[in-house]
Amino acid sequence: MTLVALDADDTLWHNEPLYRDARDRFCALLSRHDPALIDEHLYAVERRNLAHFGYGVKGFVLSLIETGLDLTGDRLDGTDVRTIIEWGREMLASPVELLEGAREAVEALATQFPLILVTKGDLFHQESKLARSGLGGFFSGVEIVSEKDVQTYRTVMARYGVAPEQFIMVGNSLRSDVLPALEAGAHAVYVPYELTWVHERVAPELLDGAHYHEIEHLRELPALLRRLESR
Amino acid sequence: MTLVALDADDTLWHNEPLYRDARDRFCALLSRHDPALIDEHLYAVERRNLAHFGYGVKGFVLSLIETGLDLTGDRLDGTDVRTIIEWGREMLASPVELLEGAREAVEALATQFPLILVTKGDLFHQESKLARSGLGGFFSGVEIVSEKDVQTYRTVMARYGVAPEQFIMVGNSLRSDVLPALEAGAHAVYVPYELTWVHERVAPELLDGAHYHEIEHLRELPALLRRLESR
Repeated sequence: MTLVALDADDTLWHNEPLYRDARDRFCALLSRHDPALIDEHLYAVERRNLAHFGYGVKGFVLSLIETGLDLTGDRLDGTDVRTIIEWGREMLASPVELLEGAREAVEALATQFPLILVTKGDLFHQESKLARSGLGGFFSGVEIVSEKDVQTYRTVMARYGVAPEQFIMVGNSLRSDVLPALEAGAHAVYVPYELTWVHERVAPELLDGAHYHEIEHLRELPALLRRLESR
Repeated sequence: MTLVALDADDTLWHNEPLYRDARDRFCALLSRHDPALIDEHLYAVERRNLAHFGYGVKGFVLSLIETGLDLTGDRLDGTDVRTIIEWGREMLASPVELLEGAREAVEALATQFPLILVTKGDLFHQESKLARSGLGGFFSGVEIVSEKDVQTYRTVMARYGVAPEQFIMVGNSLRSDVLPALEAGAHAVYVPYELTWVHERVAPELLDGAHYHEIEHLRELPALLRRLESR
C-alpha cells in the first residue's frame, strides 16, 4: 500500500501571500528606506533567527521588529512595533484559502490512498489551519514537524510502517518536501507554487532520478499516482 | 500494560523560573511603574494573546512588548524592545536544567513501564529541550500538543491503544495534566512545582476521586505506580 504525504502551506492552501503582504506593508512603514535593502536585511535577520525561533508567524513578526530596529538605529516608533504585532495576529487569524482544485484533488486521492499531512511550522497555528480548512477528515494522520529533513521522513515512514518505495511526498518546496524525501529513498512530487521564498531555491541537478516527479497543479496528482502504481 | 505519560516543563526540567526571571527584568526595565500593576497587565495581555499565539517563549516575548507599549503609551524605547527580544533568544537557548532526581525517577520508571512525554508549547523549542535533556532515549513516544484538554488525552490514548484505566498522566499542572486526564477517565498524578503560574490555579474540590494522586517529588513516582499496579 502506498502512503501519500502532502505538504500543507502553499500546497493545499495559500500561505506565502500572507508573508508577501506583510513584507510589502513593512516596506511601506519604513518608506524612507529602499525596499530592496529592507528585503535583503529582513532575509538576513530571518535566516539568523531560524535557528532560535523556528518557522512560523511569531518568529517572522520578531524578525520584522528586529529589522525595523536595525534599519532605524533603534528608533522604530512604538506605534509601528504595535502595528507589526497586529499584522502577526491578523496573519494567524486570516481565513484558510485552499488552492484552486485542492479539495477535489484531496477527495479523489483519499478514495485510493491513505493520506497524511506532513507540515512544518508552528504546531498551534498549523492545527488551527487544518481545522479551518475542512480537509482534516481526509487525512488518516497529521505530522507537524519542526524541520523537514531526511531523518524526519525516516521517522514518519517508520511510524506508519511503510518502506521508502511505498512513500510519496508531495509539496511545493524543493528544499523541504522534495530533496530530503528523495534522499530518504522515497518518491517526491514537486508542485510549484506561484511564489517561492528565496530560502527555498535549490540547484536543478539535485532533482535527477526516477523518484522525482513534477506536476503543474495538484489536480494532476491522482493521475500521476495511478501511473506510478501501475508501473 | 500501563502507559505512563509525563509532562516536561516544571515536571522534568525547570521552566517557570525562566519566565519569572524575564518578568523581574521586565519590571526593572519599566521601573517607573508599580511591579504589581505590570504583573497584572502582563497577565491580562498574555491571557488575551493565548488564543492567538498559543503557549511558548515567542508568544510571551510578544506579550512583554505589548505590555511595555501599553504601559508607556507606545513610548517604549527601541533599545528596550531589542532587549526584550534578546531575552527571548536567551530563554530559548538556556540550558535544560533537570529537576533534582528527575533523571533517576525516569530511569527507574523506564525499566517497568512504557513512558511517553506529553507536553504543550512550541514544537521547535520542546524538541530542542528534549534533545538537550538527555532523557529522549527513555521515552517510547513524544507527543507535543497545542493544548492539553480531554480530547487531547483521548487522542493520545487511542494512538497508543490503551484504555483510560491503563493510562497515567503525571505533571505539575492541575489545569493541564490532572483535571483533563481525570475527566478522560485516566489516572493523574500531581507533582507540584515550587512556582505556579496564576493561570494554573484550580478549585480543590475538582481533585476528588480514586484516580487522583499527589506526590511531593518525582522520586516518589516509581513506588506510587508499583502500589497502583498491585491493587
